[in-house]
Amino acid sequence: MSNSSDFQRPDGRAWDQLRPIHLQQPFTKAPAGSVLAKFGDTQLICTVSIDEGVPKFLMGSNQGWLTAEYRMLPASTIPRQQREFAKLSGRTQEIQRLIGRSLRAALDMTAIANYTFTVDIDVLQADGGTRTGGITGGFIALKAACDRLMAEGKIERSPIRNAVAAVSVGLIDGKPILDLNYQEDLAVSVDMNVVMDSTGKLVEVQGTGESDTFSRSQLDQMLDVADKGIKELLALSC
Amino acid sequence: MSNSSDFQRPDGRAWDQLRPIHLQQPFTKAPAGSVLAKFGDTQLICTVSIDEGVPKFLMGSNQGWLTAEYRMLPASTIPRQQREFAKLSGRTQEIQRLIGRSLRAALDMTAIANYTFTVDIDVLQADGGTRTGGITGGFIALKAACDRLMAEGKIERSPIRNAVAAVSVGLIDGKPILDLNYQEDLAVSVDMNVVMDSTGKLVEVQGTGESDTFSRSQLDQMLDVADKGIKELLALSC
Amino acid sequence: MSNSSDFQRPDGRAWDQLRPIHLQQPFTKAPAGSVLAKFGDTQLICTVSIDEGVPKFLMGSNQGWLTAEYRMLPASTIPRQQREFAKLSGRTQEIQRLIGRSLRAALDMTAIANYTFTVDIDVLQADGGTRTGGITGGFIALKAACDRLMAEGKIERSPIRNAVAAVSVGLIDGKPILDLNYQEDLAVSVDMNVVMDSTGKLVEVQGTGESDTFSRSQLDQMLDVADKGIKELLALSC
Amino acid sequence: MSNSSDFQRPDGRAWDQLRPIHLQQPFTKAPAGSVLAKFGDTQLICTVSIDEGVPKFLMGSNQGWLTAEYRMLPASTIPRQQREFAKLSGRTQEIQRLIGRSLRAALDMTAIANYTFTVDIDVLQADGGTRTGGITGGFIALKAACDRLMAEGKIERSPIRNAVAAVSVGLIDGKPILDLNYQEDLAVSVDMNVVMDSTGKLVEVQGTGESDTFSRSQLDQMLDVADKGIKELLALSC
Amino acid sequence: MSNSSDFQRPDGRAWDQLRPIHLQQPFTKAPAGSVLAKFGDTQLICTVSIDEGVPKFLMGSNQGWLTAEYRMLPASTIPRQQREFAKLSGRTQEIQRLIGRSLRAALDMTAIANYTFTVDIDVLQADGGTRTGGITGGFIALKAACDRLMAEGKIERSPIRNAVAAVSVGLIDGKPILDLNYQEDLAVSVDMNVVMDSTGKLVEVQGTGESDTFSRSQLDQMLDVADKGIKELLALSC
Amino acid sequence: MSNSSDFQRPDGRAWDQLRPIHLQQPFTKAPAGSVLAKFGDTQLICTVSIDEGVPKFLMGSNQGWLTAEYRMLPASTIPRQQREFAKLSGRTQEIQRLIGRSLRAALDMTAIANYTFTVDIDVLQADGGTRTGGITGGFIALKAACDRLMAEGKIERSPIRNAVAAVSVGLIDGKPILDLNYQEDLAVSVDMNVVMDSTGKLVEVQGTGESDTFSRSQLDQMLDVADKGIKELLALSC
Repeated sequence: MSNSSDFQRPDGRAWDQLRPIHLQQPFTKAPAGSVLAKFGDTQLICTVSIDEGVPKFLMGSNQGWLTAEYRMLPASTIPRQQREFAKLSGRTQEIQRLIGRSLRAALDMTAIANYTFTVDIDVLQADGGTRTGGITGGFIALKAACDRLMAEGKIERSPIRNAVAAVSVGLIDGKPILDLNYQEDLAVSVDMNVVMDSTGKLVEVQGTGESDTFSRSQLDQMLDVADKGIKELLALSC
Repeated sequence: MSNSSDFQRPDGRAWDQLRPIHLQQPFTKAPAGSVLAKFGDTQLICTVSIDEGVPKFLMGSNQGWLTAEYRMLPASTIPRQQREFAKLSGRTQEIQRLIGRSLRAALDMTAIANYTFTVDIDVLQADGGTRTGGITGGFIALKAACDRLMAEGKIERSPIRNAVAAVSVGLIDGKPILDLNYQEDLAVSVDMNVVMDSTGKLVEVQGTGESDTFSRSQLDQMLDVADKGIKELLALSC
Repeated sequence: MSNSSDFQRPDGRAWDQLRPIHLQQPFTKAPAGSVLAKFGDTQLICTVSIDEGVPKFLMGSNQGWLTAEYRMLPASTIPRQQREFAKLSGRTQEIQRLIGRSLRAALDMTAIANYTFTVDIDVLQADGGTRTGGITGGFIALKAACDRLMAEGKIERSPIRNAVAAVSVGLIDGKPILDLNYQEDLAVSVDMNVVMDSTGKLVEVQGTGESDTFSRSQLDQMLDVADKGIKELLALSC
Repeated sequence: MSNSSDFQRPDGRAWDQLRPIHLQQPFTKAPAGSVLAKFGDTQLICTVSIDEGVPKFLMGSNQGWLTAEYRMLPASTIPRQQREFAKLSGRTQEIQRLIGRSLRAALDMTAIANYTFTVDIDVLQADGGTRTGGITGGFIALKAACDRLMAEGKIERSPIRNAVAAVSVGLIDGKPILDLNYQEDLAVSVDMNVVMDSTGKLVEVQGTGESDTFSRSQLDQMLDVADKGIKELLALSC
Repeated sequence: MSNSSDFQRPDGRAWDQLRPIHLQQPFTKAPAGSVLAKFGDTQLICTVSIDEGVPKFLMGSNQGWLTAEYRMLPASTIPRQQREFAKLSGRTQEIQRLIGRSLRAALDMTAIANYTFTVDIDVLQADGGTRTGGITGGFIALKAACDRLMAEGKIERSPIRNAVAAVSVGLIDGKPILDLNYQEDLAVSVDMNVVMDSTGKLVEVQGTGESDTFSRSQLDQMLDVADKGIKELLALSC
Repeated sequence: MSNSSDFQRPDGRAWDQLRPIHLQQPFTKAPAGSVLAKFGDTQLICTVSIDEGVPKFLMGSNQGWLTAEYRMLPASTIPRQQREFAKLSGRTQEIQRLIGRSLRAALDMTAIANYTFTVDIDVLQADGGTRTGGITGGFIALKAACDRLMAEGKIERSPIRNAVAAVSVGLIDGKPILDLNYQEDLAVSVDMNVVMDSTGKLVEVQGTGESDTFSRSQLDQMLDVADKGIKELLALSC
C-alpha cells in the first residue's frame, strides 16, 4: 500500500505504524499479575487480582468471572483532572465495560470456576489509546495471573482460549491512521477501536463518526490497518 | 438471498424482516417534539425539549447542542425493575451516549445556535432494540421539534442534515438476523447495532462478540442486512 | 347550590365540575395492572407490579404489602424539568407516601399474604391533580392486578375492601372549586386533597393554607364539593 | 362534653388534656431565637437563625423567607436510631415542609425583606407529637428572633401576623384524644395534625386513616378538641 | 511557675486555668448514659447508647465495641452552619475517630462482650475545645452507662479500666495556654490535644503546627500544662 | 545506644534503621513534579500539579495554596481492596489532611500567590508508612515543582522555607522501633507519626495508644529515634 494520506504524523510515524511499546513485568507484588505498559507516552498500570467466589448471578454455575475497572490518575493529564467520585462518567463506564467484555472473550470461564478476576487499569499518563492499551496490557497481566494460578495448583488447565489485543484507528482526510495519540485523536473525523484475537477473529468493533460519517469501504480500510497492528501487538504478548 | 439459517424466529418473521412499526405523533403537548414509537412489543416515548442556552464548553461558539437521556420505566419488564437512582448503570450511560452521538450526527449545530435540544427516551415496554428504536424514534421527534422551531420563526433554516435511523442485527448459528426481539437477543452469539444516515453512510457501528467472536465476512453480512433494514426505517420517517 | 364565585374557570367548567376523564386499559403488558389515565390534560401511566415476598418488617406476619412510586417524566412540563436523581424532593416523597397510604386503605392485606404490590405513577403530562389522579388511576390498575391474581389462582378472594378515589379542591375568592388544573392551582389561596372510599368515609384529608388561612365553615364547603367529585370518580372505576 | 371513651390514657390525662409544658428560653446564645421545649417527655431544641439574603426564586421580590429543618438526635429513641444521611426519609421531609409552611403562615414576608430565617428543630427525646411540638416551639423561638431583629433596628415593624400553634389528635375506639404520646400514637386508628392561628383560623389540617377510615362527624369532633388544645398552647406563647 | 506570657486571655483566666465546668446528668432518659456538659460557653450533649451485637470484624471474638459520632448542631455557631450531609468533612471524621479511640482506651472490651456502645457527641454551642470536651464528657456518660449495665445485671464487672479526660493546649507568643476557647484557638501558632488516663499515662497526643513549628522543649511545656488540666478534669469525673 | 528490645525485626533491620529508599524522578511528564518513591516494599507515586487560581477563602489574599489527595490503588494490598467511592474513609481523610498540613508548613504561601499546588499520593504497594512516605516523597516532588515554576519564570524566588520529612515510630515491648513495615505496624502497642523540618523543629506529632498507653519518657524515646530517621531522610532529599 502507498502512504494513505498527506497528513504528517506529529511523531513521524508511518500511517500504519504502532508507537514504541515497553512492558515492565511484574511491576508490583501484591496482585497475581501486574505490568507497567507503555505505548508511546501512554502509560498504564495493569493488574489482575484474584479472589475466591463469584458474583451472585453465577453462583452454582461452575463458572468464574472477570470484571474490569478503569481510572485515570489525576496527574495523568495536563491540566490535572479531578478524580471521578460518587459517580463514574459515561466514558469511564464504557471503557471499563469494553475492557471487561474483551478480556472475558479470552477466557474459558469453566476453567476458573469459583474465582473472580479483577483487572485494574490505572492510567499514569494519557496520550491516546488508553482503552485499547488497557485491553492489550490487561491481557498480558491476565496471562501472568493464570500462570500463577496454575503454578499454585489452584486450577488444572490454562483458562486462556486465545490471546486478545486491541488498537485504535482513525480517519484523517478520509484515510486510515493506526494507533492514534492524543493529538491525532482530536484530528480524526472517525474513531474506531478494534479488538481481535490470535485466530484473526473480531471480538469487538466500535466505530464512531463524531464529526463525520464513513462509508463501508472506509470501514474496510480501517479494519485492514487495525488487523495489521493487532497482529504485531499479539506477537509481542506471546 | 436465500434464508440464512434454520433458525425459526419466534414471531415467524423472515430473517431480514423488521417488526411491525407504529408511530403516534404528537403524543404529548409540552415538548417540541413527541412520539410514541412501537417496534413490535417494544414501546418508547421519545420527546425533544428545547431550551435556550448551551453548555459551558460551547458558550460563544455560535453552535447549539443536543443531549439524550434514556431510562426504562420500572414496569417495562417482567419482573419489575428498580429505577436507576443515584448512579446510572454502565448500560444506561452507554445507551444515552450512543443516542446523543447518533442524533447529533443528523444536525447542523450552527443552525440551532444557542439552543439545547434534550431528547428523552423513556421505555414503556422492553422487548429488545430499545437503543436502536430510541435513535429511530428520537429522530422522528427531533424532526418535528425542528419543524416547530422553524414555524415559530426562531431558526431560519432546517438544522437537519440527513435523516438517521438504527437497527440491531445478530448472529444465530453464524447467520445474520435483523431487528432482534428480547428472546432473540438472548440467543445471538454476536450482537451489533448499526446507525446509518439517508445517504447510506455509517454513523456508528458497534459489534460485540459476548459469547463468540466473528469473522470479517460475517461482519459484512451483518452490515448488509442492517443496511436493508435501515433503508426501510428511513422511508418511514420521511 | 348556586355558582359559588364570580371566578370564571379557564376551561369553562362549572365550579363543581370534574375534567373529562379518559382511561385506556390495559396500556402495557408486563405489569399485572396498567392504565393510561387522563384527567383533562393531566396524563398518567399507572401500573401495578406484583412480586413475591414482603418487606422485612412484615416477614412472618401473614400479610402482604403495597408501596407506591411517583415520578414526573422530564418532558411532562414546560419547560422540561430535570429527573430527580440521587435524592427525591420533599414533594415527590410526600406524594408517593400519600398514594401508598391511600391505596393500602383499599386493601385487606391478609388476602395478599406474601405478595408485594408496587404501584408506579409516572406523569406523562402535568396539568394539576397528579397526586389525586395517581390515587384514582392507581386504584383502577390495582383492581385489574387483583383480578389477574385471582384469575391465576394465586389468591382466593379479592383483597379489595372498598374502592377509593381522590380529588383536589381549592378556595378562590373564598369559594370552593373542584378538580383544579395547574392554572387554578396557582390561583387558589387554600389547597386541599381529599381521599374517600366507596362507603363515603374519609381516608385522608390534607388542607394547606399556603397563602391564606381558612375557617371551619370553608373546610366544610370544600369537603362537600370533594364528596360530590369523588362519588362521580368512583362510579367510573366500578 | 362527657368523657369520650372508655380508653384510659397511660399517664392518666383527661381525653382532652394537654401534656405538661416546660419552656426554657433562651437556651443557647448563637441563634437569634432558641428554646428548649418540653411537651411531657417530648423534648425539642428549637432555634431560629437569621442570615442576610434570600433564595434565588425570591431575589428582587422585596420579600424574606423562612425554611425549616427537622432531625431526631440518634439517642432520642430506644433503641438508638441512625442519623439520616445522604438522603432524608420521606417522614422527615414531610415534617420539615409542614413546619416551614406553618411558620411562614405566621409571618408577613415583606416585613423581613432580604432576610432568611432558618428554623432548626432537633428532637432530644421523642415521645409523640414532635412535629406539632416543633411548630409550637418553633413559633416561640421565631417570635424571640423577630424581637431581637427589631431591637437591633434591622427591621422596622414586627413581621408576626398571628401566633400559630399545633397539636395532634387521634381516634381511639372512635373517640377523639388530644395530644398523643408515643404509646397512644401506636393505638389510634386515625391520626390528625392541626395547625391554627390566634384568630381561630386553620393553617393546615392533615388527617390520615392508616388503619381505619373516618366519618365527617368524627372529623368535626377531632377538630373541636384540637381547637381547645391549640387555644391553650397559644395562651402560653403570648 | 510564673505567668508564661504577656498574652491576656479574653476571659481573664490564668494561662493554666480551665474554664468553668457544669455537668447536668442524666440529661435525657432514652440512652444508657447522658450528660449535658458545659466547658465555659462550649456546650455538648454526650450520650451513650448500648445495643446487643458487635461489628462483623469482632464476631466470635468475645469482645465488645465502642464507636463514636460527633456533629455540630447548625445553630451552634454564628453564622449558622449547614448540617453535614452525604459526606462528612475530614474534620468531623478526625474528631469522631479520636473520641472513639480515646474512650476505647478506657474500656476492657472483654467485659462488655457482645455489646456495642455508641457515643454521640452533639455540639449545642461551640466555643473551642469541642473534641476534648467530647472525650471528657463522653467518658462521664460512658461511666453512667456502664453502671446501668451492671445494675441491670447484664455484665458482671465494670469494664472501666481507667478514667480518661482530654484538654487542648496551644502556644501563644511561644508560651503554653490551657483549654483554648474559640478566640484563642484562632490566635495560637501551635495547637495540641492531649488525652490522658487516671494513671497519668498518655492515650493520645496530637500536636499540629499549622502556622509555626515547635521545639521539643515547647512540646514538653505544653504537655506539662495539659497534665495539670487533665488531672483537674479527672477529679471532677470521679 | 544499646539495642532497645529483644524484638527481632522481620527484615533484620536494626531497631533504629530506615528501610532502603529508592527514588525515580521524574516519573511522568504531565505534572510539574513527580517521583516514584520506594521505602522498602512501600511504593508511592507522588505528583505535584500546579493550577492558577486559589480557593475562595484565599481570593484577594495574595497567597497561594497547597492541598493533598491520598489514595491506595486497589491492587496495592492482598487481598485487593475496593476503591473508595462516594465517601472517603476517615483514615483516608486524616492522611490527606496530615500530608497537606505538613507540606504547607514547608512553603511560604506568599511566594506562590495565585497558584494552587495539588499533591497526589497514590499508593502502588502498601507495606506500612504510606502516610509518612507520602510526606517525604511529596516534599521531593514539591521541590521539583517549585524549581520548574522558577525556571519558567512564573515565580521569582523559591517558596520552600525548609525541607520537611516524616517517619513512623512505634513501641514494641515498650521500646521504640523506627520506620514500621506493615507486619510491625500490627505488632506495636503505640504508633506515632512525626513530621520535622530541616531546622529540627517539629511540624506535627501524632501519637496514638490504640492497644496501650504510654509514659512521657516513652514519648521522649520515640521522638529521639524519629529525629534520627528524619535527619537521614532529609539528607536524601537535599
